[in-house]
Amino acid sequence: MTMMQQMTLARRPEGAPTQADFNLETCPIPTPGASEVLVEVSHFSLDPYMRGRMDAAKSYAASVPIGGVMEAGGVGRVIASNDARFGVGDQVFGMFGWASHGVVKGGALRKLDDALPATTALGVLGMPGFTGWYGLTQRGLPQAGETLVVAAATGPVGSMVGQLARRAGLRVVGIAGGADKCSMARDEFGFDACIDHRAHDTARDLRTALADACPDGVDIYFENVAGKTLQAIIPLMNVHGRIPLCGMVSWYNEGALGAGASTGDSDMLPWLWRNLLVSRLTVSGFIISDHFDQFPTFLREVAPLVAAGDVKYIEDIAQGLENAPAAFAAMLKGGNRGKQIVAI
Amino acid sequence: MTMMQQMTLARRPEGAPTQADFNLETCPIPTPGASEVLVEVSHFSLDPYMRGRMDAAKSYAASVPIGGVMEAGGVGRVIASNDARFGVGDQVFGMFGWASHGVVKGGALRKLDDALPATTALGVLGMPGFTGWYGLTQRGLPQAGETLVVAAATGPVGSMVGQLARRAGLRVVGIAGGADKCSMARDEFGFDACIDHRAHDTARDLRTALADACPDGVDIYFENVAGKTLQAIIPLMNVHGRIPLCGMVSWYNEGALGAGASTGDSDMLPWLWRNLLVSRLTVSGFIISDHFDQFPTFLREVAPLVAAGDVKYIEDIAQGLENAPAAFAAMLKGGNRGKQIVAI
Repeated sequence: MTMMQQMTLARRPEGAPTQADFNLETCPIPTPGASEVLVEVSHFSLDPYMRGRMDAAKSYAASVPIGGVMEAGGVGRVIASNDARFGVGDQVFGMFGWASHGVVKGGALRKLDDALPATTALGVLGMPGFTGWYGLTQRGLPQAGETLVVAAATGPVGSMVGQLARRAGLRVVGIAGGADKCSMARDEFGFDACIDHRAHDTARDLRTALADACPDGVDIYFENVAGKTLQAIIPLMNVHGRIPLCGMVSWYNEGALGAGASTGDSDMLPWLWRNLLVSRLTVSGFIISDHFDQFPTFLREVAPLVAAGDVKYIEDIAQGLENAPAAFAAMLKGGNRGKQIVAI
Repeated sequence: MTMMQQMTLARRPEGAPTQADFNLETCPIPTPGASEVLVEVSHFSLDPYMRGRMDAAKSYAASVPIGGVMEAGGVGRVIASNDARFGVGDQVFGMFGWASHGVVKGGALRKLDDALPATTALGVLGMPGFTGWYGLTQRGLPQAGETLVVAAATGPVGSMVGQLARRAGLRVVGIAGGADKCSMARDEFGFDACIDHRAHDTARDLRTALADACPDGVDIYFENVAGKTLQAIIPLMNVHGRIPLCGMVSWYNEGALGAGASTGDSDMLPWLWRNLLVSRLTVSGFIISDHFDQFPTFLREVAPLVAAGDVKYIEDIAQGLENAPAAFAAMLKGGNRGKQIVAI
């Protein structure tokens, strides 16, 4: 077969993305040029950051252009190689996009350890797991006996943060959507407690539940959702607390977020600022791609824990490229169960 | 004379404090007990943080009770001592409040170096100067060639931050109220540029002026005012910028700030949060009283610079305890010229 499939962005979504925002295209498989490698993709990753790529607003990475292939990390096997470091059949990770095949420079590929399932390179031992490890260890600065809260607790970032924090001797409280996910956080990932945010409509209600689950306050809030969770937790932060900030998924579908030029008045900003001062909090925004120099350290530390079953992971694998848009939209609403992956 | 004067809080101010919020009282000078020292105060300090003490809302320090003496650091001479470390005539710093005399434990006093004017212990070599030094060096993490912005540039915190940052090789841009203060920032304190916020009514206008003055963006925003300055500067921050946060004087008279329980919707919080993430900023709230263990280091480093005239300071000395409320209210509006002090 000489044809491949790819999913392109048909138009910029308004709010939650829908199937009509994408086009599934069939096109010829490109021929790898000098030092390039052709990979047949078996799985690719769906991650919340991709929502930002669909907007026109300037972010930390360029938007996907209309008609462009959606970005994603993927894994697969080499089927042709012009780079001596890679042979046919090698299992690799690369940025192939929402696509069945990819041609990339060999220098942009990472060969995978065959001892672990290739899909682990998309989640627990990929960018999300690395985000959790980096944010917790380098920005959260955890100390035994402290309390950590993380939302999207059963996702690949939250579950890494929670498990590593538990291993470091912290009390770990998750937030997740629904009783099933809360059970998963406790039973699979070992969280001390997990709160169902769907059972607490307002920031105030959620705050009450969090306060019960965190009798000694909160020292680290690993921020990946924002929204009402952020509003709920700020007053619960202990003096000298840390807030590593790597995402705000609950706001990703809101148009206002992209504008970047608001001048509206409000009492929320003074409220936040006052709390940061009074409780001497540190908020530390980070983007994991700045820190790939530490990826080998992460793998060295965490891959053995995954191989031994001491750090667990759960994957939710959608079947077929054509189902990627629906799986992505569902993930933003919390419809997935563990790390969201698409199998070609 | 056996009588003293002190200024008490008559009621909680609504918005800007007025004379009627205070009572000037005459009372007997207390007799020092065991290990206590009686000091005749010559000068005391007025600082923006005192506005928070006038509110009932819980803050990082207790409110001044109605009828209580307003807090302040002061300097003066010992006139009676039951602590062998202090003799009559010694010049000391202590927390005597808005008062002509004070009785405190000797352990709570600091003997002053007679080589420098005692008032320096209230500003350039006191809590404000220390705040600037600590926030810049420990939270701002300045690197030669970077750009720093600080508001209230001619105040005792801002002028310390600016002068130390210049010495560290940064481009230093101040913000101040009025052309006179802007000249002072440039001519007295050596700022590379200073912007008159009164000439720029909106955050957008101020942003344009700041962008002109900071052609390479802003690496450190030393935050002590918040309000429109904060709104103006956030989009100008460079990737990996730092925001040491020690005050928000432009919001101190706003009642909403104290409530701490807002649940209002707004687009400002998402806007801020998104900028913190996209530009990978670190906001670091601190309260200088947590860090007094570093005060000797500060004095060792900065006192020689002040003595040599390499770090400059300007003091605005109001005459008479009875004029403290007016001087304080004026200071919150930027009516002072340099460090605000009251001479008894």
